Amino acid sequence: MNEPATIAWDEGSGCIRYIDQTQLPGHFSVVECRTVDRLATAIRRLEIRGAPALGVAGAFGVALAAVICTKKDRAAFFSDIRRSGDLLASTRPTAINLSWGINRVLAAMEGADSVTGAQTVAVAEALAIAHEDDACCHAIGDYGAALLQASCTVLTHCNAGALASTAWGTALGVIRSAVGQGKDVRVIACETRPLLQGARLTAWELARDGIDVTVVTDSMAAHLMRAGEIDCVVVGADRITSDEVFNKIGTYMHAVCARHHGIPFYVAAPLSTFDSDHMGQDIIIEERARDEVATCGARTTVPDGVKVKNPAFDATPMGLVTAIITERGVLRPPIDMKGLNIHRPTT
Amino acid sequence: MNEPATIAWDEGSGCIRYIDQTQLPGHFSVVECRTVDRLATAIRRLEIRGAPALGVAGAFGVALAAVICTKKDRAAFFSDIRRSGDLLASTRPTAINLSWGINRVLAAMEGADSVTGAQTVAVAEALAIAHEDDACCHAIGDYGAALLQASCTVLTHCNAGALASTAWGTALGVIRSAVGQGKDVRVIACETRPLLQGARLTAWELARDGIDVTVVTDSMAAHLMRAGEIDCVVVGADRITSDEVFNKIGTYMHAVCARHHGIPFYVAAPLSTFDSDHMGQDIIIEERARDEVATCGARTTVPDGVKVKNPAFDATPMGLVTAIITERGVLRPPIDMKGLNIHRPTT
Repeated sequence: MNEPATIAWDEGSGCIRYIDQTQLPGHFSVVECRTVDRLATAIRRLEIRGAPALGVAGAFGVALAAVICTKKDRAAFFSDIRRSGDLLASTRPTAINLSWGINRVLAAMEGADSVTGAQTVAVAEALAIAHEDDACCHAIGDYGAALLQASCTVLTHCNAGALASTAWGTALGVIRSAVGQGKDVRVIACETRPLLQGARLTAWELARDGIDVTVVTDSMAAHLMRAGEIDCVVVGADRITSDEVFNKIGTYMHAVCARHHGIPFYVAAPLSTFDSDHMGQDIIIEERARDEVATCGARTTVPDGVKVKNPAFDATPMGLVTAIITERGVLRPPIDMKGLNIHRPTT
Repeated sequence: MNEPATIAWDEGSGCIRYIDQTQLPGHFSVVECRTVDRLATAIRRLEIRGAPALGVAGAFGVALAAVICTKKDRAAFFSDIRRSGDLLASTRPTAINLSWGINRVLAAMEGADSVTGAQTVAVAEALAIAHEDDACCHAIGDYGAALLQASCTVLTHCNAGALASTAWGTALGVIRSAVGQGKDVRVIACETRPLLQGARLTAWELARDGIDVTVVTDSMAAHLMRAGEIDCVVVGADRITSDEVFNKIGTYMHAVCARHHGIPFYVAAPLSTFDSDHMGQDIIIEERARDEVATCGARTTVPDGVKVKNPAFDATPMGLVTAIITERGVLRPPIDMKGLNIHRPTT
């Protein structure tokens, strides 16, 4: 993807710049964000979304909080920054990368011997996280590309692409890397109700890269699998426990249908998405607003007073996952969380 | 459901009156239809839809063609009427009830000894079909209700309700009958992308009847099944061959997921939906317009130039169907089409 990036730190003016994803594909607009409150709103409204991008947003958010804080006293300064971190972490509770990015910058700052030093460290650590994300996605892409046939059709759900990370993407990183290796990859992008990240974002970014993409409603995936039109499924993840993969609502349905048809089901995600502290049953799935389901565009589609459900994510048991593609290689379940030796900063 | 009916013959003015379903739930409007061309447009635009309702619409369409035809010569008259029948049959090729209704009225007319007699017979036969549909749906409802537990949650897809028939409905007829017997039935209505008949129509008509209904996106069904929140699935059908059930796109996905979770999957449909002349592989699935998928309300959600697929139906193999609920009782696969001895008029 060309610049500007999905989310970036503007070193000149010390603010965050990001693409407002709620406006795509109709409008391409870049927002300059100068307060933590504005960033929290942006995350809540999904102007910024996608697990890896949320990790970077959390990191930049703490850096922003540090840079704009006027407290000179160390304790008062850190109290402010931690409050900002808590606010940001509360915006999307299911996505683990967000708190991972926040905690990693907070942990780095604690080693600084002055407020000014902590501010410098915060920005440097956040930038390091963003740079690592890019390298990470390329590694995931390369490991995953090796799993794809020379000519194949890949089904994906939601957007685990450039717009969900800083640039290359996870699931779409796999596709980009495969195309880069000369493989003939066609993509079926499930539109992903209710917020249509597949139709709006995945189709937009793949079409910009000249990659063959076709949009279908989520309900068409099984029909295409039965017709032999899907060779594998590749999706991202918002949190991975040893027993379950949490990802956008609808992912589980694809996993069940892929298993029924004997189609490989791959999850592409950085190790920052792994949660070794919990089991799937411990994770609370974020329930979002009624209007996301009850309206389509500006039109009200559900009669007034009728209830809706709107869980943002679902959980896919590891038994339905063929492999998880990480920056350290391809993991086949069962997943040995301890053996992965993932470092999770805590503060 | 209260009057006016989904579709009815206005004996006073000799025209068809129907509820324009594209306007629901926002606007309730009844259209007076006085030409076959207008009726064909209404069917193509899904102002009238649903397998049993299309059977009645086809029958009323032939009656309308007969009543407004000014030809006095028998051959010229029948030539006009058959042309009208062909036009109507071409509007929704996958839905078998449409051609069934058309052919039944045409066959009845051929026994008449005059043009005037044929006009009278056409209206009488079409009205008989409408009355039979109502009786049929009540029978389906009663047979199906016996399959539901005293307290249960039923998942349904699209709209196989009052709006898909003359009044009681097929899948929703089962639910109405069960509620009428005092059973405690909660309904999960899948919104049914792309045209949202579940959100707009099923939720609307069940809420009007005071039946507990919750709308979910199609992608949430498997998640709810895994959570133990669905006791059975009941859907309608547009065509049933001995090996497959054709119904709204997404039905197959629910059938696969129901099987994975050990949940009964029921199809509620009148025998007029059965096609003993073809196998599933012979049936061409209607592909509808790009815009239905590429837009949501007035908003364009798929970037310009990106391809979409829009098959209106999918096929569920009989092996995934627990039972088919008909007006003659509950049939468990395998289905012996010959043994059913279904009379299909041909002309």
